[in-house]
Amino acid sequence: MARQVQPIVTLLTDFGAADPYVAAMKGTLLCAYPTATLVDISHEVPAHDVVAGAFVLAAAAPCFPRGTLHLVVVDPGVGTDREILVGQFGGQLFLFPDNGVITLIKEAMPLEGLVAVRNAPPGTFGPISSTFHGRDLFAPLAGQILRGANVAELGPTPAKYRLLDLPAAERTTDGLLGQVIYVDHFGNLITNLLEADVRRRWADLRDTELLCGDERVGAFANTYGLAEKGKTLALFNSSGRVEIAVNQGRACDALSACVGTEVRLRDKKILDA
Amino acid sequence: MARQVQPIVTLLTDFGAADPYVAAMKGTLLCAYPTATLVDISHEVPAHDVVAGAFVLAAAAPCFPRGTLHLVVVDPGVGTDREILVGQFGGQLFLFPDNGVITLIKEAMPLEGLVAVRNAPPGTFGPISSTFHGRDLFAPLAGQILRGANVAELGPTPAKYRLLDLPAAERTTDGLLGQVIYVDHFGNLITNLLEADVRRRWADLRDTELLCGDERVGAFANTYGLAEKGKTLALFNSSGRVEIAVNQGRACDALSACVGTEVRLRDKKILDA
Amino acid sequence: MARQVQPIVTLLTDFGAADPYVAAMKGTLLCAYPTATLVDISHEVPAHDVVAGAFVLAAAAPCFPRGTLHLVVVDPGVGTDREILVGQFGGQLFLFPDNGVITLIKEAMPLEGLVAVRNAPPGTFGPISSTFHGRDLFAPLAGQILRGANVAELGPTPAKYRLLDLPAAERTTDGLLGQVIYVDHFGNLITNLLEADVRRRWADLRDTELLCGDERVGAFANTYGLAEKGKTLALFNSSGRVEIAVNQGRACDALSACVGTEVRLRDKKILDA
Repeated sequence: MARQVQPIVTLLTDFGAADPYVAAMKGTLLCAYPTATLVDISHEVPAHDVVAGAFVLAAAAPCFPRGTLHLVVVDPGVGTDREILVGQFGGQLFLFPDNGVITLIKEAMPLEGLVAVRNAPPGTFGPISSTFHGRDLFAPLAGQILRGANVAELGPTPAKYRLLDLPAAERTTDGLLGQVIYVDHFGNLITNLLEADVRRRWADLRDTELLCGDERVGAFANTYGLAEKGKTLALFNSSGRVEIAVNQGRACDALSACVGTEVRLRDKKILDA
Repeated sequence: MARQVQPIVTLLTDFGAADPYVAAMKGTLLCAYPTATLVDISHEVPAHDVVAGAFVLAAAAPCFPRGTLHLVVVDPGVGTDREILVGQFGGQLFLFPDNGVITLIKEAMPLEGLVAVRNAPPGTFGPISSTFHGRDLFAPLAGQILRGANVAELGPTPAKYRLLDLPAAERTTDGLLGQVIYVDHFGNLITNLLEADVRRRWADLRDTELLCGDERVGAFANTYGLAEKGKTLALFNSSGRVEIAVNQGRACDALSACVGTEVRLRDKKILDA
Repeated sequence: MARQVQPIVTLLTDFGAADPYVAAMKGTLLCAYPTATLVDISHEVPAHDVVAGAFVLAAAAPCFPRGTLHLVVVDPGVGTDREILVGQFGGQLFLFPDNGVITLIKEAMPLEGLVAVRNAPPGTFGPISSTFHGRDLFAPLAGQILRGANVAELGPTPAKYRLLDLPAAERTTDGLLGQVIYVDHFGNLITNLLEADVRRRWADLRDTELLCGDERVGAFANTYGLAEKGKTLALFNSSGRVEIAVNQGRACDALSACVGTEVRLRDKKILDA
């Protein structure tokens, strides 16, 4: 990829915002490449939650320009024998631990190259620690790449790499069975029911009935504000998934739902029959 | 306004820091204008709270340089028929939903131009969703403006636009009656009593007595550290408002106060009479 | 120090992320120097907690490039007669209130110059408030320094400045006695036991036993993932300190520990004798 004067580097971690860890990574990166444009994807991925990290990454990273370098440090295995990988997907580079956090990127963006890092640069401030690879390994490595290192020379192409076994929605006799896969800041319930699958099954959404756990969800609408205030609704969200929401409220509370709660989209005509 | 190489773009939302939404906006914006300097105003406006958004915006935006572009996405009506407006106030540009979030900016900075957006650029990643205008409409629109689009050509000047009906302090026979309008991170209570009005009414602040709900507040002081540790005080804050605080403590807890709690500034001489 | 086109300025405060205060500082700074690269160290230092601020600063600031300017606004004494100091440590500049927040920087980086600010520039938006020096004093001062002001001319070198009296680990007959000095986002317990002291005392860590309060901690390991999931372990962290952790869990909860909890590293052979 062509070098840019102000390359964009994103950071996605489970480090939280209070501690010095994110800033230590950024400072180290700026030592290596002072004009990089740093953008936080999130540092509030729940601690050690690779699945949530995979979801957040896949919802944000595709929006960045080609040439962006993403540092993904949701890494409960830091310092163990898990590999660090550099992958190019859709013209963007991702540095990530081989723990499956890349799973949903791989589904969304074409894989164009992958190496397991063996020739990492030395730590900027002394030996590479076993507990803080964000600062001691990801950041110097990012600097090396930004300065023009040939990614292919960082190590061999791995024979395989880890992908998460995420639950997929299933077709049932009366519709689709899925689950909540993410609960956002607003309490919206994001599911693994895909808009494309729903639209393929039903020409008219009024023929459907949506259950979240045992609770009936209000009808599909185009957006939150089209439901009555405080009432549940279903919608196709901006990532092409079925989302369950409450207009100006919290669906997770209203429906006592969380990640893993089953959602069923059923055909009313079959139910009525 | 003259184009800048590194224009400053701020983001104010109620999206929270955990989810991918803010980063999706930033990535999209950087696709449109890779050298923009992005500054977060806040993403912790309480969900759907346009009044709090208006307060935070008005306390931060006037500190930015002329030419700054502010993206204000506290927008519970996303995807409904509410308009998106572009306003120039005091040499800065604001993109905001027509829900009143601009109210306190309008009071503080002169309005120099306003359009209702009708000619938005297409979504960067496909059709404009009904639920995520931050990514699909505000960010591409910001990019278009940064690249030199003529704002006046984005749409017509609206005949009117929404302003919030915020409570104003009232004069009473013995002083001023107002309320808490914002509680900050420190637990400080910010009121709608204005320094200018207080100073006009009283030459000597020692003639006043301040009640917050039913609780007596300690005397006016120049700053927090001049009250005894743990004691309440009143002060004129850095935005020209009466603020109630506890030195190294939380006034909201000490006084059981929240947004809406009544505050009364009374004349002691009248009370004593 | 040589001027840079895009100088790096960090911000460390206890302002939180919700309020307009951090953005007001940033906007003011960008008014003074529009191309500065702003990096947040943290705004989640507990309110008024100078000790925690000192810890976070010392863990992050040394990672930044020479020439970086750090604005440290953990400042419960804002507006009182406490001085504002500008110190150069290890080629980096620090603006900070004279309340001890610099203590751990001074231990880690050589002091190369120090002045007490007497000739501050005027506030950008009117008189300097007594309650918001971050916006009215630190930010304009930073701008002045970035534009090339001679730091030595900002004021006199103070005869002395405040340092915190932080607890140091002690040698005991059977080992070392220290305490928890910081609890991070993961619930990891960071102590004032230094790796260098431990290694000086013991050639083989298997000869040690670590107590946190009254609870026995699992053996030293190189990193979190080498303990059984959910079990406690000790490690030398990336800042050269003994840290107590739980693999994919929260040590602070598992051990009912917090800042101040005593930790004892003892020699098993002495105990067994």
